[in-house]
Amino acid sequence: MITLISDFGTSDPYVGIMKGVILSKDPSAVIVDITHEIAPQDVAEAAYAIYSAYRYFPPGSIHVLVVDPGVGSHRAIIAVSMAGYYFLAPDNGVLSLVLESGNVDFITTVENDSYFLKPVSRTFHGRDIFAPVAGHLSNGLPIDRLGSEIKTDNAVHLELPMPYQSQTGEIAGTVINVDRFGNLITNIDHPFIQKTFGLVSERDLNISIGTHQIAGLSACYEDAGSQSLLAIVGSMGFIEISVNCGSASEFCKQTRGSVVSITAVDRK
Amino acid sequence: MITLISDFGTSDPYVGIMKGVILSKDPSAVIVDITHEIAPQDVAEAAYAIYSAYRYFPPGSIHVLVVDPGVGSHRAIIAVSMAGYYFLAPDNGVLSLVLESGNVDFITTVENDSYFLKPVSRTFHGRDIFAPVAGHLSNGLPIDRLGSEIKTDNAVHLELPMPYQSQTGEIAGTVINVDRFGNLITNIDHPFIQKTFGLVSERDLNISIGTHQIAGLSACYEDAGSQSLLAIVGSMGFIEISVNCGSASEFCKQTRGSVVSITAVDRK
Amino acid sequence: MITLISDFGTSDPYVGIMKGVILSKDPSAVIVDITHEIAPQDVAEAAYAIYSAYRYFPPGSIHVLVVDPGVGSHRAIIAVSMAGYYFLAPDNGVLSLVLESGNVDFITTVENDSYFLKPVSRTFHGRDIFAPVAGHLSNGLPIDRLGSEIKTDNAVHLELPMPYQSQTGEIAGTVINVDRFGNLITNIDHPFIQKTFGLVSERDLNISIGTHQIAGLSACYEDAGSQSLLAIVGSMGFIEISVNCGSASEFCKQTRGSVVSITAVDRK
Repeated sequence: MITLISDFGTSDPYVGIMKGVILSKDPSAVIVDITHEIAPQDVAEAAYAIYSAYRYFPPGSIHVLVVDPGVGSHRAIIAVSMAGYYFLAPDNGVLSLVLESGNVDFITTVENDSYFLKPVSRTFHGRDIFAPVAGHLSNGLPIDRLGSEIKTDNAVHLELPMPYQSQTGEIAGTVINVDRFGNLITNIDHPFIQKTFGLVSERDLNISIGTHQIAGLSACYEDAGSQSLLAIVGSMGFIEISVNCGSASEFCKQTRGSVVSITAVDRK
Repeated sequence: MITLISDFGTSDPYVGIMKGVILSKDPSAVIVDITHEIAPQDVAEAAYAIYSAYRYFPPGSIHVLVVDPGVGSHRAIIAVSMAGYYFLAPDNGVLSLVLESGNVDFITTVENDSYFLKPVSRTFHGRDIFAPVAGHLSNGLPIDRLGSEIKTDNAVHLELPMPYQSQTGEIAGTVINVDRFGNLITNIDHPFIQKTFGLVSERDLNISIGTHQIAGLSACYEDAGSQSLLAIVGSMGFIEISVNCGSASEFCKQTRGSVVSITAVDRK
Repeated sequence: MITLISDFGTSDPYVGIMKGVILSKDPSAVIVDITHEIAPQDVAEAAYAIYSAYRYFPPGSIHVLVVDPGVGSHRAIIAVSMAGYYFLAPDNGVLSLVLESGNVDFITTVENDSYFLKPVSRTFHGRDIFAPVAGHLSNGLPIDRLGSEIKTDNAVHLELPMPYQSQTGEIAGTVINVDRFGNLITNIDHPFIQKTFGLVSERDLNISIGTHQIAGLSACYEDAGSQSLLAIVGSMGFIEISVNCGSASEFCKQTRGSVVSITAVDRK
């Protein structure tokens, strides 16, 4: 199984062409689109997308990421074996969150052009390198044939915003994504809240964004009135700010990068 | 075969994650997207989509609908066996049109959490319940293992606008959908016209929407001049108002919910 | 393998319904979307899309195009065997570029309604004709069963803009497509430049669009500064005008149909 994440969109034939090349190499490959609507060149958005998705695919799946503003330059392409999955991506940090989330077995550069489509174009390595290499991996090619092993520490690392406890005690986090529903997905997860505040009840958390205050976490969207603001533990374990049957992004006029803070009520 | 309808859009990784879960349960499943662009929480739009599509899939197909504003609340999830197909959906009326269109064999709640992905999140039952249950059904799990049988009449019913004959004799209907081309799809079908007016010629029907009058039905779009308004029997058997090589929605400044009326010329 | 190009978009269930019909005829068919975001009725855009994509699929693939403003009229549907591929499309010129790019083996009208879904609707031949015929071809139906052979010259030909050398010596071309990244894809390819100017160095070409001048071709996007304009040989061999990490379309305020000219520096 091969999954695809890119910033190609679905209006142009680019994604279809990549699938044609993959299936020319391995006609039995099952290809699943994770998303092609990453904002152009937005490596961080793609890093979150693959981090949230990769574990839900069968072992052996090959995850291919083509968000690649450096295409055709001297940036490397890397292939990774980790946690029973393969990953194929430009070495631009798009795999940062994945690599931090498990034990890497092997990383190699992708340089052996006998697995490329030739001539390699200047602008579309998705077609000429990523797709045929994914097809070869899917056919059983050992990953160490692709290039030279590198150390995990030598892969490009992307600095992504992390939550922290401020001097005044509250958790300071960031909106890392806004989904189609307008949910504001933060980088604050439940373990971090517990580490900071101890075993605090969800009722005793106060969440602030912009001028809005939310008291406690909800068990479901309908716990809040229709069109009302709420906070909830989202499907990836991060705190999300939502509006029941509406868009929190529009309601709060907040977006990716917005600051979110959480305090705990002192019941002493 | 498993089909998917949701309001998840295709920008976020949600749909890809669902496919990963399905294929983890049944690697041989063939998954077809019907649409993921249902407007957020628009149960009625999804009800029309599945109604127009389900018959065109091979017998045994499993149709999965995740338009689910009540996710995480006490709303039930139901699985239906009907007309050789399976349907899996929240019990919020999204299957109303389907259930009216055939003879239901069996409906059950979906409660047996041994078929769920755990822990079940508060916000993404598509991943944690719908996808793994669809995978199990695809693997041959008997539908009666999922929960407790319920009667068709006890499933939530959505009141959708129906056409009627007004006191002055004309058919009064509603635009139920506007497609990408700007076609205004009404809820008035040909059998209803015949029931109301008898065996009237298509030429003798007058269709009104807003300030616009259309004389007769067209045999094809090109029957009208370029950029001209026309009415035609659409692919689902409903009367549609279209503009040849243009958008009837823009031309008429009408949209979903707009009133459409049809009269028959009296040739006596 | 069956590929699909249409102007149906992905919001409506039309594409999913076509896939259901195909898979009802041939459950083992692998279906790949090339794009469904062709602008409504834009036959030329679809002609470029299939031309850029068809070679990248395995031999024997069946390419289906449904951009069909004449649906239901007397326009013909044709099936083509060429270069090891099959093509199925309305006879409206959408295959013009494909047919010019290779040696046609066989063209037939598609008229044998024993392979159609009946009753054939007035508005959705994608479902009623294209999909079932594609399924039958995928099942091994000989193409000559579909209708009557026609000569290549009798297929409708679309006049698409071609580059030429003006009286003052420069190459005059046109932007034929703008992709998701805002790249302006011209109709000027490298062989045409060589034919016009001889063996000129890429450095010695000057590309003009609107009020903008670009000196030389780039080897990759990063060769230009961030947000800077550049010209590059794109993945289909055509000259493209791009902005590194930005949109050339927005930068230059140019779009499809815009004039592009290229001159060669005289080093004598």
